[in-house]
Formats: sequence, structure tokens, C-alpha cells
Amino acid sequence: MTLPAQTFDARAAAAALAALRASAPLVHCLTNQVVSNFTANVLLAAGAAPAMVVAEEEAGEFAALASALLINVGTLERPQAAAMRAAIGAANLTGTPWVLDPVAVGALGWRTAFCRELLAFSPAVIRGNASEIIALAGGTGAGRGVDSTAQSDAALEAARALAREHGSLVLVTGATDYLVDAHAVRAIAGGTPRLQQVTGTGCALSALVAAACGCGAPRMDAVAAVSALMKLAGERAAPESRGSGSFAVALLDELGTLGGEDLAARWFA
Amino acid sequence: MTLPAQTFDARAAAAALAALRASAPLVHCLTNQVVSNFTANVLLAAGAAPAMVVAEEEAGEFAALASALLINVGTLERPQAAAMRAAIGAANLTGTPWVLDPVAVGALGWRTAFCRELLAFSPAVIRGNASEIIALAGGTGAGRGVDSTAQSDAALEAARALAREHGSLVLVTGATDYLVDAHAVRAIAGGTPRLQQVTGTGCALSALVAAACGCGAPRMDAVAAVSALMKLAGERAAPESRGSGSFAVALLDELGTLGGEDLAARWFA
Amino acid sequence: MTLPAQTFDARAAAAALAALRASAPLVHCLTNQVVSNFTANVLLAAGAAPAMVVAEEEAGEFAALASALLINVGTLERPQAAAMRAAIGAANLTGTPWVLDPVAVGALGWRTAFCRELLAFSPAVIRGNASEIIALAGGTGAGRGVDSTAQSDAALEAARALAREHGSLVLVTGATDYLVDAHAVRAIAGGTPRLQQVTGTGCALSALVAAACGCGAPRMDAVAAVSALMKLAGERAAPESRGSGSFAVALLDELGTLGGEDLAARWFA
Repeated sequence: MTLPAQTFDARAAAAALAALRASAPLVHCLTNQVVSNFTANVLLAAGAAPAMVVAEEEAGEFAALASALLINVGTLERPQAAAMRAAIGAANLTGTPWVLDPVAVGALGWRTAFCRELLAFSPAVIRGNASEIIALAGGTGAGRGVDSTAQSDAALEAARALAREHGSLVLVTGATDYLVDAHAVRAIAGGTPRLQQVTGTGCALSALVAAACGCGAPRMDAVAAVSALMKLAGERAAPESRGSGSFAVALLDELGTLGGEDLAARWFA
Repeated sequence: MTLPAQTFDARAAAAALAALRASAPLVHCLTNQVVSNFTANVLLAAGAAPAMVVAEEEAGEFAALASALLINVGTLERPQAAAMRAAIGAANLTGTPWVLDPVAVGALGWRTAFCRELLAFSPAVIRGNASEIIALAGGTGAGRGVDSTAQSDAALEAARALAREHGSLVLVTGATDYLVDAHAVRAIAGGTPRLQQVTGTGCALSALVAAACGCGAPRMDAVAAVSALMKLAGERAAPESRGSGSFAVALLDELGTLGGEDLAARWFA
Repeated sequence: MTLPAQTFDARAAAAALAALRASAPLVHCLTNQVVSNFTANVLLAAGAAPAMVVAEEEAGEFAALASALLINVGTLERPQAAAMRAAIGAANLTGTPWVLDPVAVGALGWRTAFCRELLAFSPAVIRGNASEIIALAGGTGAGRGVDSTAQSDAALEAARALAREHGSLVLVTGATDYLVDAHAVRAIAGGTPRLQQVTGTGCALSALVAAACGCGAPRMDAVAAVSALMKLAGERAAPESRGSGSFAVALLDELGTLGGEDLAARWFA
């Protein structure tokens, strides 16, 4: 069974993107070492303020100050897991929303157990590809390394189960992104295959989702806005590009210039 | 009270930049994981040789071989702190100059205590934004994450106090950079707001400062030269850029092509 | 004495490159933190699938799933050394080929001992500059930081000794790359000095060598193919570039578009 999806509200997303750029949320990133530089530059382009404070000694202190917290397990190691626990604990005490990016969950036992442990601490949003969302919900995601082998709509049931059990929004990304809560599914269609040819575009989107959670706009609208922003930036960057190198450069340029009105013009029917 | 500043000596800086490019100093970087790639590429563009030797087992051995050492606490962790202590100890035994970049000091207790501990080991140069320099000197810097909330001239008294107590040069960066020792303040004005939109431009400047300390030219002139180099490269890159992605690319290109004569032409009155 | 070298077989390399792009090998990278992002993007551009699974808890599990494994000691730390031992052990049990990049071996005692320990575990390929290959074989490589001070042909005897003792292919890189086994030396000439001005091009080539080992084509041909691919991509990117920033972007673009026929046209006489 496929859950019925409706298109996201592009006008509300446009307003949320404006709110994000106006508020410049401070995003505490505990992310993987492959994408930390790109993630910081994506956040800056979108108008947020990135900060990677990684030690267990400081992670809780900083999460309490931040607008939002990102937890990405792509290159999880034991000291980072300890810092993540400290940061999430402090975030939940102070009401800082936090986002889980369960990279490659299901493919590897240790991180799978760790991500399931984290679910008990109520992430505001979970962002993953279909394989990851299915695996996180307890199914067999059958990913290959960090890539999904499933289409994003195959994960809608798993996403709704996670949303119901943990009170989280779930953003399943792919050719179409699906934003799922306990009651509804909203679809954001678009983008370009080029987004798969640059490492970390999904990880950076998760950081933007954290920024969305910290910007004060309604959460559903703000998360839809950053999903749409990444897709539209990719659509604009692709024809300007000769390959993955120039695409990554153009993507950052577009992320810095697109505004709410561009989202509305692209998706408002 | 604001300390009186005079413009830096652009002709002496031009000569120092030529010396830097001619000597290709080997810069041992113990820096944060977000900016390590960009820092290495900035050093290469400027004609220096970067090397990131990070383990406690090797950091002292390598610092003794290097032309200069960079200590940047942006993503400080306990093993890195141990490697930093080993590297600084070896650097001071062998006369290798070392540079302190106290990222986000004041905002977080652990790194603040660590940076103050390091001050006892006589950094050749301290490079930070106004909030960081004020906090390092014992004041309330009131930074927000890694960004300063103060103008660079607000930190001149703190910079001079650090310079007097520790025998260091202090480079306070902002819209105008101030290079402060116990006796004088020199101002390097210029640059572009684009430099704030790419992560790690300040961290990479600190690496260039280390290269400056290891190039054999008079220290004050060489540090002023790399401050001016980064500002002028930014000024040239900005009008060629559509956003932060293409700006970062153009910045590296400009850092690789600008010479001493360009600094002299830009600032010599 | 210089060993006689013959030119590599460009037609066989062309076929191997096509096989690599068709098979999309999953490359498990345990590499240094400076180059992890660039390495992942180079692998993606060449058609491979990168995955950096770094914890000791997961490295063996993932190496067993991967098409090939890369071990690069550029920023070796104790936990990474443990993960490397676990990954190599699992790779050898499951027949996953692994590649050793002995960054700066010879210059530093701890990594030198570690790399020599790893030689006992039969790397499929060893990729290094002349200083590193000489040092790994027990000679005095006299590198300076991460850069070689010797020409690549000075390391041919050392490369053959390593090949004979450990059953490995050895790729010595420089202005001419030499691919050495116990019986023959093949030369791949070309490239551009620009490749030295971007950090991590050698490290990323080692990752491509791992992809070559995991693509199913004859190993000698596939390794020659990725050496030639990097050189030709550099040759095409250099005239499009204004400096090291735009060169790195163009290099990724070229790596994504060059095919086997381009290698054949460039080197087939």
C-alpha cells in the first residue's frame, strides 16, 4: 500500500525560508568528517550559522546555546557517540530541537543499535534515504554503503511508523522527497541526478533541516522549504555545470541567492 | 580608549610576501577538521607546504622539523589537546615559531581553560576575532558560536595586554585587521564581506600567519603581508563571483597569483 | 641502475576504465581527514561509490562487504590504526583487495613502523611518491613533509623489491608514474604540475587505485588506467584554470567525463 501524498504548501514554505534567512539560526553540527566543510558552507549559503563543537567536554554546553542540533552518524566513533549523547541530553533539557541523519543505518550493526537508542530521545526530524528509513523502523533496508537501493515512496509506511512512535517528522529523500508525520504525507518533487554525484548533499540537507527547526517558522513548512531549496538549487545549478566539480560550486551559489519567492514560483500551482 | 593605529608598511610587506613564496615554509597544522582541506589548499596557493601530522606519537617529532606550527582549537578533542602539547613543547625546544588560533574561546569553558594554559608557552602570534581576543585576555568576549559580535577595534586593549604579557604579536581580524605588539598597532583595512560567507577563511589566515612566521622575513612585516594578501585576494575574487561557491574558488586562484607588487600597489600611498 | 620501462598498454587500460565505470565498485576508505571529502568526490566522478566507515567497531564488517579497501596513513591516530588492522584482517579473509598509501613514511617513526607492519598483510597495490617507496623498502627516502624530494625513477629498484617480497603491484607517482611488479615496469607519462598545487590528488589517486582493484578488470591494466585518467584529467583541466581553485573544479569535471577512448587516443601510438 502506498500512502496518499499531497504536494507541500509552497507559499507557506516560501514564508518559512524567509524566516530562516532572517533569523540566522546557530546550528550545532555533530556530523561526519567527510562532509563537515561542505555542510558548513551550505549552512552559510542558506543564511544559517554553523558550529562544529565536537568534544564530549563541550557538546552539551554548546547544544544548550544553539538554535538546533544535527546528529549525523556517517563516521561514528566512540568518542563522537559520547559527545552526541551529551549534546542530545542538553538539547532536550533546554528545548533545542535536534535532527537525526542515520547514515547507512541497517548496513552496519553498531550504528544501527546506536541510532535506535537515540530514537528514544525524540528527534524533531529524521532525515534519510528510503533504505535508511526502512532499516531504522526495523525493516530490511538493503542499502549499499551509503546509498539507497529503494525508491523513496517505498519507505512511506516505515516513515509513518517512526513518526507515530517517536513524535518526529520524517523526511525521506530521493527523486521525490516525502515529509511524513503521524497524519499526512507531503511530497516535494524535483531536483537533479547531479545531487547524487557530489558527496554530502544529503548530509548537508539534514543540516538545513536542523536550521529549519531552529528558525521559528512552523516546522512542517520550514522543513519542506529546505527540501525544496536544495532541489531548486540543484535544478538551477545543473545546466550551468560541466561536471560534478562545477555543479558543487554552482549549487552553493544558488543556495545563497534563491529566496522564498523562487520556491513559490517553482511549485505554486 | 582606542589605541592609535598606523597603516602597515606595504613595501616591507611586499618584500616579506616575496620571501614567503621563495622559501616555501613547511607548516605543521594542528587545526580543526572542518577547515583542514581548505587550509592546506590556501597554504599551497600561497606557496607554503602544508602538513597535518595529528597523532600525539608524531606531533612533537614533526613540529621539530617544520618551519612553523599552527594550533587551532576549533574542534578540540582530548587526543588533539595532547598532540598540541607535544608539538608546542618540541617547537619551543627547537625554536619553531607557533601560532595560536583560539576559535570560540570564551564561549566554552574547556577550550578557554586550554587556550589560557597554552599562553604560557609563548605563541609567536595569536590570531582571532575581537570576541576571541577579548575573551582570551580575560574579558567577556560575547561571541556567538565561532563569530565575533564585536568590532575588531574593540579588542585593541585586550590585544596589547596579551602582547605585553606573553611577548606575542596579536592579529585581531575583522573589517580592518589590527596587528598589535607591545608598542604599536598597525591597521590593514580592506577585504570583502564575502570572506565571512566561506567557512574557514579566518582559520586559513592563521595558517598563513604561521607560514609568515616560518619564512625568514621580519615577523611584523610578514604577518601584515598575509593579512593584506587575504584581503586583497578577497577583493579581487568578489566581483568575479556569483555566490560563496564561486567566491571560494576565485579566492584560491587569486591567492596563487597575487605578488608583493600587488600589495604595494593596493596599499602604498 | 635504472630498470627498463615500457609504455603501458593504452588499449587494455581503456577497456579497464570502461569496466570500472560499468561496475561502480564500492570503495571503503580509511584515509586522512584532510582529503576525505575530495577523495569521495573523485571516486564519485570516476563512477565508483565511496564509503568512509571509520570505527574499529564497524571497519571489519564493512571491509567484508566492499569491493576494495583503501588504507592511507596521512593523519594516522591510534584508534584509526586499530580500525585499519580490523579492516585489513576482514579484507584478507573475504578476498577484498586493499591498497596502501604510505603517506610521509620514512619521515616519522611511528607511521613507518606501522606501514612496515602492514606490509605483511599483502596489499594488492602500494601507491606512493619516490621518497615514500624508497623509505618503505627500507632506504632513506628523504622526503620533506608529504612531498617527495626524489624523482619517481629513483624508486624503481625499491618498488621492485617491495613487489617481489610482498606480491604487490607498486605505483610510484611523479612526473612519470611507474607501475612495477616483480617482472616488469610500465611507464605512464604526462600530467601537469598543477596536480601538486591541490592537496590530496595523490591520495585521491590511491582511492582510484582501490576502485581499479575492485572493478573486475585485469589489475595491471586497471591501475594503469586510473593513473592515466588522473594525468589526462589534469592535462585537460590545466588550460581551463586560472589557479589551483578553478583547477580542482575542472579536474573533477574532467574525471567525470573522460572515457576509455580518451585514454586510448592520448597514449596509443
